[in-house]
Amino acid sequence: MKANAIPLAAVACMLAFTATHTRAADPLPSWNDGKSKQSIAAFVEKVTKKGTPDFVPAPERIAVFDNDGTLWAEQPMYFQFFFALDRIKVLAPQHPEWKEKEPFASLLKGDMKAALAGGEASLVQIVMATHAGLTTEEFEKAVSDWIATAKHPKTGKLYTEMVYQPMLELLTYLRANGFKTFIVSGGGIEFMRPWVEKTYGIPPEQVIGSSGGLKYEIRDGQPALIKTPEIFHNDDKDGKPVGIQRHIGRRPIAAFGNSDGDLQMLQWTAAGAGPRFCLYVHHTDSEREFAYDRESHIGKLSKGLDEAAAKGWTVVSMKDDWKTIFSHDKK
Amino acid sequence: MKANAIPLAAVACMLAFTATHTRAADPLPSWNDGKSKQSIAAFVEKVTKKGTPDFVPAPERIAVFDNDGTLWAEQPMYFQFFFALDRIKVLAPQHPEWKEKEPFASLLKGDMKAALAGGEASLVQIVMATHAGLTTEEFEKAVSDWIATAKHPKTGKLYTEMVYQPMLELLTYLRANGFKTFIVSGGGIEFMRPWVEKTYGIPPEQVIGSSGGLKYEIRDGQPALIKTPEIFHNDDKDGKPVGIQRHIGRRPIAAFGNSDGDLQMLQWTAAGAGPRFCLYVHHTDSEREFAYDRESHIGKLSKGLDEAAAKGWTVVSMKDDWKTIFSHDKK
Repeated sequence: MKANAIPLAAVACMLAFTATHTRAADPLPSWNDGKSKQSIAAFVEKVTKKGTPDFVPAPERIAVFDNDGTLWAEQPMYFQFFFALDRIKVLAPQHPEWKEKEPFASLLKGDMKAALAGGEASLVQIVMATHAGLTTEEFEKAVSDWIATAKHPKTGKLYTEMVYQPMLELLTYLRANGFKTFIVSGGGIEFMRPWVEKTYGIPPEQVIGSSGGLKYEIRDGQPALIKTPEIFHNDDKDGKPVGIQRHIGRRPIAAFGNSDGDLQMLQWTAAGAGPRFCLYVHHTDSEREFAYDRESHIGKLSKGLDEAAAKGWTVVSMKDDWKTIFSHDKK
Repeated sequence: MKANAIPLAAVACMLAFTATHTRAADPLPSWNDGKSKQSIAAFVEKVTKKGTPDFVPAPERIAVFDNDGTLWAEQPMYFQFFFALDRIKVLAPQHPEWKEKEPFASLLKGDMKAALAGGEASLVQIVMATHAGLTTEEFEKAVSDWIATAKHPKTGKLYTEMVYQPMLELLTYLRANGFKTFIVSGGGIEFMRPWVEKTYGIPPEQVIGSSGGLKYEIRDGQPALIKTPEIFHNDDKDGKPVGIQRHIGRRPIAAFGNSDGDLQMLQWTAAGAGPRFCLYVHHTDSEREFAYDRESHIGKLSKGLDEAAAKGWTVVSMKDDWKTIFSHDKK
């Protein structure tokens, strides 16, 4: 053994430590320095510091994220709706009656406004018609094929490229600090599961969403689960804390949303004992993304904005707080 | 630095390695050597061996376990039923009408047979009456208090001492090999969650069970989730693969049960592509536990026994395959 072996090893150790330390110094590089970023870091440091009264054991570090408008964009329309529209075009030849039947007739003519005149009921009808009857595996394949190729109507990007870079960093940062990250979305649970693991690093068992009926049956000698056209759980508003209880059975300590549909989830999270963190993403950037809040028909944020101000929750201004919104924006 | 420092460190390393290796050599010490134990080890080795066609990546190593009769005992009656009975005694003063109303009147007189004459419907009525109306947190406390003190009518042990030692070892062994372990039980999801983490090492978000209604409301100025008296999901038979799909969204590669109520879960698991493992616990030990199968009113195992034989699933004989059943049996 040479005399300088140990000092060299020590130097290597120090270099490795410095490199790690430098990387760890900014786990949120797409966030501008400011109150929002500071509030996140302060919360994470607080709950992970052993031996303090605010310390939260790792199994209880549950963080819940809305999806549409919080992790990926939701304009000009929920992306799942575009999936349903594309499914209708695929399925139309098997449904000649759709030519006469609303909302399908208007949709097939490209008249979106007339198709959606029926409001929520039309939306549900469209989603049911395009999602039910398939086995869960057939549906998963339909989603996987679509998400791999379909493009956003405004940006021409894949939908999985319409995810917010700062939120991806936040998910990674929380997980590196022992948090378990869940999606809690009004979107369809089976629509999200095929792609969220790759895109967000969230496995299917940590996805909570709206769901339809499911029926177990033997098809061609093999057991199969068939999607049926009932609404089983509507994971929006009051449905979010309910969905959290059903799936997680433990109250989250951190919740992230962007609309009034997320308010009950944030309230439920905030009302627990000990340190809690609630954050709203506020869509304020009409150039790099979209600007909307109190008057929007999608992702309306009005009551939530008032409650966030009253309760001191973090409100992220996409325009001011985010250096980068989409990874493809990067200069 | 002394000349012998390195050899000593190397010896320490080797000792540590040997100790680990010796422990790892029998991760299932309560299992007798034999076909059952061998079949488990062979499966785990197969799916964890990188670079082979049977290798399964860790996120897909989902293992599902029934609870009653598979992880803990279920005789002379499901333990949750004893919890409900005890709740009825606690609640009776607030319900004078129960003195005249079945099944409560018979229960309060201690006439179990008359109380259960109504079959499944009586059971549901008893469970609903004792579980609904509470907030999820109140209910959790009621379960935690009960499970900490209530004793099994035959053995006088705590119910959490009525768990099968070989199955605890199996859970630990699977997790040490990258499996994620889930409970999939006909029992109430909220009845299991308060104690399974400590007893089985399974966190609440990995528990699937039967569930009632849940309602979000503001109570005394605070958000609360109230249990309501509907059946939301019956996690038995066909309901097991449905519950698995709703909660996990991925087909398990290994499934463990003890009754015909688990058959669909085992079928669903077995029918997936790639290596699969299905195991039935067969209650064959009338001395150390209970012996029952085809004719039992609880945990009936008849169709399942036939299908296991036909498909070559592992059938564990508690009498022959288990050295120890309960940890308190140990000599």
